[in-house]
Amino acid sequence: MTKKPKILVTNDDGIMAPGLRHLWEALVDIAELHIVAPATEQSAVGLGLTIRHPIQIEAVDLKEPASAWKVTGTPADCIRLGLSVILGFKPDLIVSGINRGSNAGRNVLYSGTIGGVIEGTLRNVPGIAFSCSDFVNPDYKKAAPLIAPLVQHLLEHPLPKGTLLNVNFPETEEILGIKMARQGKGLWVEDPDKRTHPEGHHYYWLGGKWQDHDEHEESDVHLLKQGYAAAVPIHINELTDLAHFHERKERFNKFFNDKDS
Amino acid sequence: MTKKPKILVTNDDGIMAPGLRHLWEALVDIAELHIVAPATEQSAVGLGLTIRHPIQIEAVDLKEPASAWKVTGTPADCIRLGLSVILGFKPDLIVSGINRGSNAGRNVLYSGTIGGVIEGTLRNVPGIAFSCSDFVNPDYKKAAPLIAPLVQHLLEHPLPKGTLLNVNFPETEEILGIKMARQGKGLWVEDPDKRTHPEGHHYYWLGGKWQDHDEHEESDVHLLKQGYAAAVPIHINELTDLAHFHERKERFNKFFNDKDS
Repeated sequence: MTKKPKILVTNDDGIMAPGLRHLWEALVDIAELHIVAPATEQSAVGLGLTIRHPIQIEAVDLKEPASAWKVTGTPADCIRLGLSVILGFKPDLIVSGINRGSNAGRNVLYSGTIGGVIEGTLRNVPGIAFSCSDFVNPDYKKAAPLIAPLVQHLLEHPLPKGTLLNVNFPETEEILGIKMARQGKGLWVEDPDKRTHPEGHHYYWLGGKWQDHDEHEESDVHLLKQGYAAAVPIHINELTDLAHFHERKERFNKFFNDKDS
Repeated sequence: MTKKPKILVTNDDGIMAPGLRHLWEALVDIAELHIVAPATEQSAVGLGLTIRHPIQIEAVDLKEPASAWKVTGTPADCIRLGLSVILGFKPDLIVSGINRGSNAGRNVLYSGTIGGVIEGTLRNVPGIAFSCSDFVNPDYKKAAPLIAPLVQHLLEHPLPKGTLLNVNFPETEEILGIKMARQGKGLWVEDPDKRTHPEGHHYYWLGGKWQDHDEHEESDVHLLKQGYAAAVPIHINELTDLAHFHERKERFNKFFNDKDS
């Protein structure tokens, strides 16, 4: 018997979210699972860290063959404390989700689900994020059969250093297949809702509405609309705009440093 | 007299932070300033959004020729509500900082200061983030004379769509000059500190310590150590790892979709 890979499982919807259960149930036969997830929902926290509040870590009994801890922080906190305090070893992979709601297009940097995976990628632990496009009554069962094959494929064909895989499942009743995709341009923007507090002052709900953009036919946003699951390799190790850097640096450096020469 | 550019000013250290004051004082002669900043410190929140709590917006009188509002949220919230609710017009530029502590290297995605600028960049409002490397007693006065020239340069030589400028000032007593740089690899990692609550349970401070990596000689981290300010053009519009995408997509799509053929 070959040794099972060690997988650190997290999410941003919190330790009790149905999507998390569907995720680790899909992986329990092929991996040794260690769940470290936020105690409460942490949607849209991105790569946020908790540095101004103390953090508690508590073991949770999920009555299943997986060890589990809840952390009073963000997904990135979970990965930082998971790797440095809780696990005591480097896992083979970080798997995050299944998120309730789309993390396709340019939502990558807002997503706590992906934030947990980015955190691992920045320290050379590869990772994959899963999200269901349907926010209302997400059908995790439809997505579940694709989870283990994708994870196994990723373990057998590692991503380049600094790259993670962002997988979204479509809203359609049936999933037509899964394609490697480019990051689309669509994203959730604000939809502010002004209200009056019982004491008379005003407050806002930030809200969110999907904003469509022209999409490449190989983009995740486009493929999801067609009914395909989409897997986007996202690169986060160096974000320099190298074209601009090489084009401008000489003139920029001359302008700011040679004034007196 | 030419019309002054309209600048939206934010930060992550909060509306009362000295770095914010130094920033807008450096710009007050060359721009029409509109300050929208977090009511409380929001360090390390990245691009986080406040979607599970109501947000309050309150006008603040800073006794200066700038309009100002504090927002009970993150820098990204400030930009979202600033653009959609508070200002009622599209500013020419977003300027964020001056942050207390380095946002060089791979801290870009953790920084609330840069998060505010990313938020603008994603909706085609260009932006620039300023940070001082010295966390203890930061010397904003040393940095201040570079602010207006950099902002003016950026207004005259716009960045490509989807690219922002991340500027860090060195810890050295004197700034030798300013160079356009590549994003370095160094970053703040956790430094967990386990403590016992008066009631007996344990908690952690996540903590932070700088982690050095081998650095390119044109990286911001390297140049800052030499005593230069460093300006990195950061590209966030499409994060697809295109090399991997083009190399792998055919085999990936075949593997997952042609099994039955």
